[in-house]
Amino acid sequence: MASEKTLNDLFLDTLKDIYYAERQIVKTLPKMAKAAQSAELKAGFEQHLEETEGHVERLEQIFELLGKPARGKTCDAILGIIEEGKEIITEYKGTNAIDAGLVSAAQAVEHYEIARYGTLKTWANQLGMKDAVALLDATLQEELATDKKLSQVATSSANQKAA
Amino acid sequence: MASEKTLNDLFLDTLKDIYYAERQIVKTLPKMAKAAQSAELKAGFEQHLEETEGHVERLEQIFELLGKPARGKTCDAILGIIEEGKEIITEYKGTNAIDAGLVSAAQAVEHYEIARYGTLKTWANQLGMKDAVALLDATLQEELATDKKLSQVATSSANQKAA
Repeated sequence: MASEKTLNDLFLDTLKDIYYAERQIVKTLPKMAKAAQSAELKAGFEQHLEETEGHVERLEQIFELLGKPARGKTCDAILGIIEEGKEIITEYKGTNAIDAGLVSAAQAVEHYEIARYGTLKTWANQLGMKDAVALLDATLQEELATDKKLSQVATSSANQKAA
Repeated sequence: MASEKTLNDLFLDTLKDIYYAERQIVKTLPKMAKAAQSAELKAGFEQHLEETEGHVERLEQIFELLGKPARGKTCDAILGIIEEGKEIITEYKGTNAIDAGLVSAAQAVEHYEIARYGTLKTWANQLGMKDAVALLDATLQEELATDKKLSQVATSSANQKAA
């Protein structure tokens, strides 16, 4: 009989989930940068791609701390969120509303990550994994900053242009 | 040739998306309440079910303000997020880690809603729809409060029990 599952299992399962998600986001951001009309939003997506590659590396460091191979686990949530972003690109490409739509899609991605990193950080804390807490918090702060920056792009330019 | 799409189209599309999502959440919360071990978390899900029914009604009021029929549009994001919650229930049911897993799943749902309601409120503001802004903000504040309450349940009891 398998031993009872604990917070360690939840932590590892969720780490695999966000590892898969981050790698999907790495593949998606260039498409979002390409579809963006404003130079500011394009540059924002390109900068966030570099950050996201850093997030993947931090997750790999946490797998190493756990002594586990870095392996993703299909994350239906991020696949659904990205699918909705693709629909925005298909339906709004070339219109004045595309940037507002892209910001909206990107903020759904950010909030998924904010939820997952917030949970993982709290669990790592509970499990006494100080190094993991620091790595997870570093990424969490970048996701929060990206979400804030996206709100600024929306209100300072994208939404007016779309309206 | 179709006229160019604008922020009005984005607003309506996203309203349909979250209307579909909220109704999926209404169906899912009783399953989460049933799976929860602690009386506190069970009661929290039951209370949020009542709130969520109110969110559906507020969205119906906004459709009415727009003079459009209240209609949902399949939201792949919420389907993916809920699917991950179902996996948690299947894999952790009956273990001491179930409540920590349920809180995590619920916070992913909350963050999706926070992203969508934040976007819709900003767009309604840009479009000069004051009544819609008030309705969207009322729900947004409840989602933010629920997310905060879930964090409290996690740190005050669910995570210790799981560890």
